[in-house]
Amino acid sequence: MSINIDNLLTLLQDALERDDFDSAIQIIEALRGPDQAVLFDELEEDEQKELLPKLKKEISADIIEDLDDPEAVKLVASLPLETIIQIVDEMEPDEAADLLGDMSDEQSQALLTRLHDADEVRPLLLYSDESAGGLMTSEFLSLRPLMTAYEATEVLRDWHPDAEEIYYLFVADDEKKLVGIVGLRALILADPKTLIKEIMNKDVIFVRVDIDQEEAARTMAHYDLAGIPVVDDENRLVGVITHDDIVDVLEEEATEDVYRLSNISDNELDPDSPIKEQLRGRLPWLYLNTITALFGAWVISNYEHVIAQAAVLAIFQSVVAGQGGNTASQNIAMAVRALATEEVSARAQRKIIIRQFFTGLLLGVAIGSVVAFGVYLWRGNIYLSFVLGLALVANLSFGSMIGVLVPLGLDKLGVDPALASSVLVTAATDSLGFFIFLSLAAYFLQEIQ
Amino acid sequence: MSINIDNLLTLLQDALERDDFDSAIQIIEALRGPDQAVLFDELEEDEQKELLPKLKKEISADIIEDLDDPEAVKLVASLPLETIIQIVDEMEPDEAADLLGDMSDEQSQALLTRLHDADEVRPLLLYSDESAGGLMTSEFLSLRPLMTAYEATEVLRDWHPDAEEIYYLFVADDEKKLVGIVGLRALILADPKTLIKEIMNKDVIFVRVDIDQEEAARTMAHYDLAGIPVVDDENRLVGVITHDDIVDVLEEEATEDVYRLSNISDNELDPDSPIKEQLRGRLPWLYLNTITALFGAWVISNYEHVIAQAAVLAIFQSVVAGQGGNTASQNIAMAVRALATEEVSARAQRKIIIRQFFTGLLLGVAIGSVVAFGVYLWRGNIYLSFVLGLALVANLSFGSMIGVLVPLGLDKLGVDPALASSVLVTAATDSLGFFIFLSLAAYFLQEIQ
Repeated sequence: MSINIDNLLTLLQDALERDDFDSAIQIIEALRGPDQAVLFDELEEDEQKELLPKLKKEISADIIEDLDDPEAVKLVASLPLETIIQIVDEMEPDEAADLLGDMSDEQSQALLTRLHDADEVRPLLLYSDESAGGLMTSEFLSLRPLMTAYEATEVLRDWHPDAEEIYYLFVADDEKKLVGIVGLRALILADPKTLIKEIMNKDVIFVRVDIDQEEAARTMAHYDLAGIPVVDDENRLVGVITHDDIVDVLEEEATEDVYRLSNISDNELDPDSPIKEQLRGRLPWLYLNTITALFGAWVISNYEHVIAQAAVLAIFQSVVAGQGGNTASQNIAMAVRALATEEVSARAQRKIIIRQFFTGLLLGVAIGSVVAFGVYLWRGNIYLSFVLGLALVANLSFGSMIGVLVPLGLDKLGVDPALASSVLVTAATDSLGFFIFLSLAAYFLQEIQ
Repeated sequence: MSINIDNLLTLLQDALERDDFDSAIQIIEALRGPDQAVLFDELEEDEQKELLPKLKKEISADIIEDLDDPEAVKLVASLPLETIIQIVDEMEPDEAADLLGDMSDEQSQALLTRLHDADEVRPLLLYSDESAGGLMTSEFLSLRPLMTAYEATEVLRDWHPDAEEIYYLFVADDEKKLVGIVGLRALILADPKTLIKEIMNKDVIFVRVDIDQEEAARTMAHYDLAGIPVVDDENRLVGVITHDDIVDVLEEEATEDVYRLSNISDNELDPDSPIKEQLRGRLPWLYLNTITALFGAWVISNYEHVIAQAAVLAIFQSVVAGQGGNTASQNIAMAVRALATEEVSARAQRKIIIRQFFTGLLLGVAIGSVVAFGVYLWRGNIYLSFVLGLALVANLSFGSMIGVLVPLGLDKLGVDPALASSVLVTAATDSLGFFIFLSLAAYFLQEIQ
């Protein structure tokens, strides 16, 4: 973040062009891990393939961990098996499992038979990428309740995880069931002879291995935890999720919300993703939107004879439809974020629906009266202004209501409210906007012509 | 998250109605801190005012910390000064400073003269809410390089912060300048006689007190830190930001992105915010959108005579404008998230612009050809279909380009790309969509009529 990528990239690429790998390696090694990955990511594919095998294996492992999954798989696949094994052995088990999970079955099986850490990685492959199990690492230290603080310290001394930081020590009984948690501070301050069960906290907050990763992240965020233990259905400790993972999950979920609200179905899509992926992630929703737009067109077509007599209506019909849609979008955005970041109780829902009806009504009056007045000044027809103003009031009230009812309803049905809200709601505000405005105008057609 | 709010709320409200405060307090105390706040937040205002002074002061403090700032200020203002002082003294200094910062100057001055922890809170009041200084806590443990590990442990023993967890110990020299960081694990494993300077890590990642909170959060997320030291412009350690704060910041920023893309100017707005706040946060943007919609209407009005001769054009004009807007929204969403979550190098920008031009062109061909074919089946006029298809290709290509150029341009100007992108871009795709379609149609008017 504080490094100047563009400058370093030039230096690095110059070195690679001269085949001066010593300098290239020095440039990379001078950076901190995450910055190494940022810089490496900017290289061309052939430069990456050339440089990666020449770096220290720990550094290659860190870089691979920080790359996007599809990119990492592609890059790793280009290396000799021996090199891959050395690199993957240096990766954190959860990252290694993610990588293997994205490889072909043959490749991952071939790797698993040769990895030193295969026993740590294998169980992680069982869990879905989107679950707590897919997020956790199997590298954790598990103490016994009857150990002394001194013994625990010795266990800690002998433990050298690939991830450097630890935040909590977990306590499990003979059946591996999670029974407590010990903070490092408590361990430091304890008399060496104290038993772990005396300093452990028995009120452990944990998650089950099969719950959705977002729920795990929200639980950690809710309780301000730096790490959370993950247990199987018999309450046995199977892994740990740490704070850096939840940041990734929450960012991912935020991006998903933004994307779904903007009708992009592929969360991995970047502005610079290949054109093929762009089309795949965007075209289906655009087709769906086109169908709803054509439905709106059909609504208008029922008033073709009215428009033929008063073409002025064609000028203003989109204002009614559009402002209803904009009002609804505001409500969808608020509802989606509220449902994503907090519990919305039944009582809060009733309050929301009532508030949003009145808000929509007032927004409609505010926008409708100004537009009516402005259009009267422009076109000088009081009936047109009246019809336009009234249609705006009606469509904004409707838009505001449906803009909360649809996301709340989808959420109740277990569908992500961000997913379909904007298509459904825009279809409704468009069609209804056209219908209200044109049917009112048809009624006053004599006066508007 | 796992608690059933609705049930507990009924129990709690029943107890309060019976004036059975012992039961009410028991219900609250049975919960963990963050859950106490969730439940408390659901109570009516008068119930909150009645219950809060009766809870233990540490519990009241935790609850106040977790409430939204305006709500917390309002609630605290209703309590007697003596109670407020007791509660605020139990709060973490950064939370106390946030609360005081939102109070009137008189109120906060009155409190500061009476608080025990005033010295910890006062310096925090100097920093903007949006800066690293506004986010940090002044509760941190600072060791000296020449202390032994044993002495450090004794310092740790005597230290009882309001926040319970600590992740790092910081090392400062005689001038309070930050010189190193010690993990708790290193302290546990060190021989008691080892000097701190021998086990500390000198490569400390830190942020300056005046940088934006989002940059501080991104730095922590980038380097996977559970805490980051904050220094003043002379490199003196003044505070610490912990991982739970960055989750809040990143969630806030994500909400801000979603809101700004949906034209809501107030990040604090909830679906159940008071109607007055709804109007204040939403009406200005709706007015701005209305102006751009009226500009679109003006574009159409130049073709009123054309539409009077071929009312069928009124049916399809919005399809062209709308699909251009939808395509552009997809690009805005991707550009905004990319700019928010990562560095976008100059090279990546060029790649993005080229890719998005071709993506828009292909999306235009895909949508344009299907719509042209469908409309030919419906209306049987090949010229209308041709004009519609061509206008869609043009407007989708244009929408795709402007959908990345505007956010990238705003970012370069130092304006948040989420803020104005959607209004500017929709105005452009609407007006241009109407213009292309209607001017092409005017050219083929004889054949379309």
